[in-house]
Amino acid sequence: MTSLAPAPHVTEADTLWTERLSERVHGARRSLIRELLKLVDQPDVISFAGGLPAPDVFPRDEIEGATLRVLREQGAVALQYGPTEGYLPLRELLVRHMDRYGIRVRPENVLVTCGAQQGLDLVGRLLLNPGDAVVTEAPTYMGAIQAFGACQARFITVPGDDDGMRVDLLEEALRAAPKFVYLLPNFQNPSGTTLSAERRQRVIELASHYGTPVVEDDPYGQLRYEGRHLPALVKLDADYHGCAHGERALRGGVVYLGTLSKLLAPGLRVGWVVAPDNVISRLVLLKQGADLHTSSFTQMVAHETARSGFLDRHVARIREFYGQRRNVMLEALGRSMPAGVRWTRPQGGLFLWVTLPEGLDSASLLQDALAERVAFVPGHGFFPNGGGERTLRLNFSYCGPDQIEEGIRRLGAVIARRMH
Amino acid sequence: MTSLAPAPHVTEADTLWTERLSERVHGARRSLIRELLKLVDQPDVISFAGGLPAPDVFPRDEIEGATLRVLREQGAVALQYGPTEGYLPLRELLVRHMDRYGIRVRPENVLVTCGAQQGLDLVGRLLLNPGDAVVTEAPTYMGAIQAFGACQARFITVPGDDDGMRVDLLEEALRAAPKFVYLLPNFQNPSGTTLSAERRQRVIELASHYGTPVVEDDPYGQLRYEGRHLPALVKLDADYHGCAHGERALRGGVVYLGTLSKLLAPGLRVGWVVAPDNVISRLVLLKQGADLHTSSFTQMVAHETARSGFLDRHVARIREFYGQRRNVMLEALGRSMPAGVRWTRPQGGLFLWVTLPEGLDSASLLQDALAERVAFVPGHGFFPNGGGERTLRLNFSYCGPDQIEEGIRRLGAVIARRMH
Repeated sequence: MTSLAPAPHVTEADTLWTERLSERVHGARRSLIRELLKLVDQPDVISFAGGLPAPDVFPRDEIEGATLRVLREQGAVALQYGPTEGYLPLRELLVRHMDRYGIRVRPENVLVTCGAQQGLDLVGRLLLNPGDAVVTEAPTYMGAIQAFGACQARFITVPGDDDGMRVDLLEEALRAAPKFVYLLPNFQNPSGTTLSAERRQRVIELASHYGTPVVEDDPYGQLRYEGRHLPALVKLDADYHGCAHGERALRGGVVYLGTLSKLLAPGLRVGWVVAPDNVISRLVLLKQGADLHTSSFTQMVAHETARSGFLDRHVARIREFYGQRRNVMLEALGRSMPAGVRWTRPQGGLFLWVTLPEGLDSASLLQDALAERVAFVPGHGFFPNGGGERTLRLNFSYCGPDQIEEGIRRLGAVIARRMH
Repeated sequence: MTSLAPAPHVTEADTLWTERLSERVHGARRSLIRELLKLVDQPDVISFAGGLPAPDVFPRDEIEGATLRVLREQGAVALQYGPTEGYLPLRELLVRHMDRYGIRVRPENVLVTCGAQQGLDLVGRLLLNPGDAVVTEAPTYMGAIQAFGACQARFITVPGDDDGMRVDLLEEALRAAPKFVYLLPNFQNPSGTTLSAERRQRVIELASHYGTPVVEDDPYGQLRYEGRHLPALVKLDADYHGCAHGERALRGGVVYLGTLSKLLAPGLRVGWVVAPDNVISRLVLLKQGADLHTSSFTQMVAHETARSGFLDRHVARIREFYGQRRNVMLEALGRSMPAGVRWTRPQGGLFLWVTLPEGLDSASLLQDALAERVAFVPGHGFFPNGGGERTLRLNFSYCGPDQIEEGIRRLGAVIARRMH
């Protein structure tokens, strides 16, 4: 074969690549939160923008001890390739842990993921063809919009109120034959609201009637600061179909997503998916192609840290810690916000949700706020189909009490100026 | 709203879920290797089936020391959420490391992934719409078949010989307008062959001429046991387009995938992608929706372990270690294999490739071999469009020298029995 003439520089990267991008890239959206996080990283900005747990409550000593034991006693396993399904003792521990919250499953139904975000990605890829519909709350978790958007999903949104998704509006959405319903029943991100017991039951009845799977995202369920624990949708679904009577199996229409990011530390990237047999086996297959498996090292460190009751003791500790910060923020809002500003009163989780008076726009407010060295996330990005211009999300887990008071004071002043 | 009649049990998981699966699930294949790994996990089986590095050379003490320093000095960062792009000091270290192999890029062009497998997944999702063609070698890496298969790609395969892909057959494949060419130029998995210097240059000329991107998968490039290092395609592409003269930037048509799995430890799940500006930014976007970011903890542990020249010293050590095991296997094959059996002589990497005489089938041979407590991977699964029934892959990195000799002896006897 003779040599070709010099290439006509068609490989200038811009045209070379952009002409070849897949459709799903156009469906992908950059997360506003994560872009913002870069901007607000300056030390003098009081940021309520992230969703970061407080490093003060990372169990650093326990993780250090666990890491040493893992490396010294099982280093050859921790540093080696492992099964796609995840480290079995960790899956067994997660099963025992969920059992204490009424969720009864077998380790075979648990797949360990790189955070709950990967669970969303895998579920989206399992179920969504381009153009398929998915029902979500509005507002809903931005990372879910991103994951399902990358599958080129259409969003059918159902608004919420103080008791979570307006299930009286859900049936109409189900008639449009969505592939699944995506819900965060506990202390929702971003709104902080909790789906009431009655509405949970109704979601399961409706989803069962229409044969629509439910994806239950529960990163914060154990971080409850007041009120009683409400049963998970995955438990209600099992009860409804009568398959939890000693069977410890899952047969129904709910996929449940959990994570250790808020319970231990997000830097470990350990989450999990619970799904019926035929679903979990397919998720395992997708996970295998996606990244082979979650780090054996971080899984074993998470297991070694969490076992022997530590996770429960630690959860009790961070509940008190974050509960106090929530109280500080609620009190500060009461003191500092001008009349006409409304906010939710979350019973748990990391976030609360502010609605500004008519005429204000949270995105442009953010510019003023950053000038005063305080940050939040404008609500618009949490609405898959637009809206929410008057809303914003505040995180209360990351900043200390003094910072919360000062930050809310600044924010109140910025809003007051805008209103006049 | 009144209560519904009891649900007609349409939510029996089987029908509920299978009716709703996305198209891409049908494109996904379960990796034969990983299924096999479960079978051969019994202690008395000598397994040449996996692709596992030897735990003997995991730098356990160094990782332990690095982990302690990371947790004690930077625990709040290591356990927290981090940027999607990856931990900047690690990206800078990888840039310096690649520079020693002639690949000159900026940290901005590096995205840290969960192993190189995630790089394959992200690149597939970036470029492949259902039905799109991708050019691969035959045989090729099973994990790539799985990742691109999940994107519902069609495979156009180009056979190889002892000098790697038959580039004289590549041009015809490029005329079919594939989205990209996927290649493992160094010590290919599974065949162990290396793309010659002349063919590398020709791949770049052809790809440039046809404007086809190249995805260069290089998990083993530094594990060379003899011969001189050959330039990476990403370097040749930069040279060809004249953009590497001091510019330290990437402008061309090659995406390069690297991993620390074989250099440090696969359990950390730390790999990376190198791509031009406009490509890397889109891969970051997809990664964000896929899992937010790779574990901050494992990235920082990898960085702390690798820095100050340790990675180079360690690579020199494992080169010697694996080179010796390769030699042991080559000698054992020479002694134990019946006439008519052929195998490759890899200059590096972890694998060699055996071709059986006419009339033998490696899949059915595996049953006999397992009865004799020795395992390998039948070659068929490495061919995206079928074929390879007479081939098999042997790993020489995992078993010790005595086991290699005994295993090859058993395998030779099994083959000899089949031939008579």
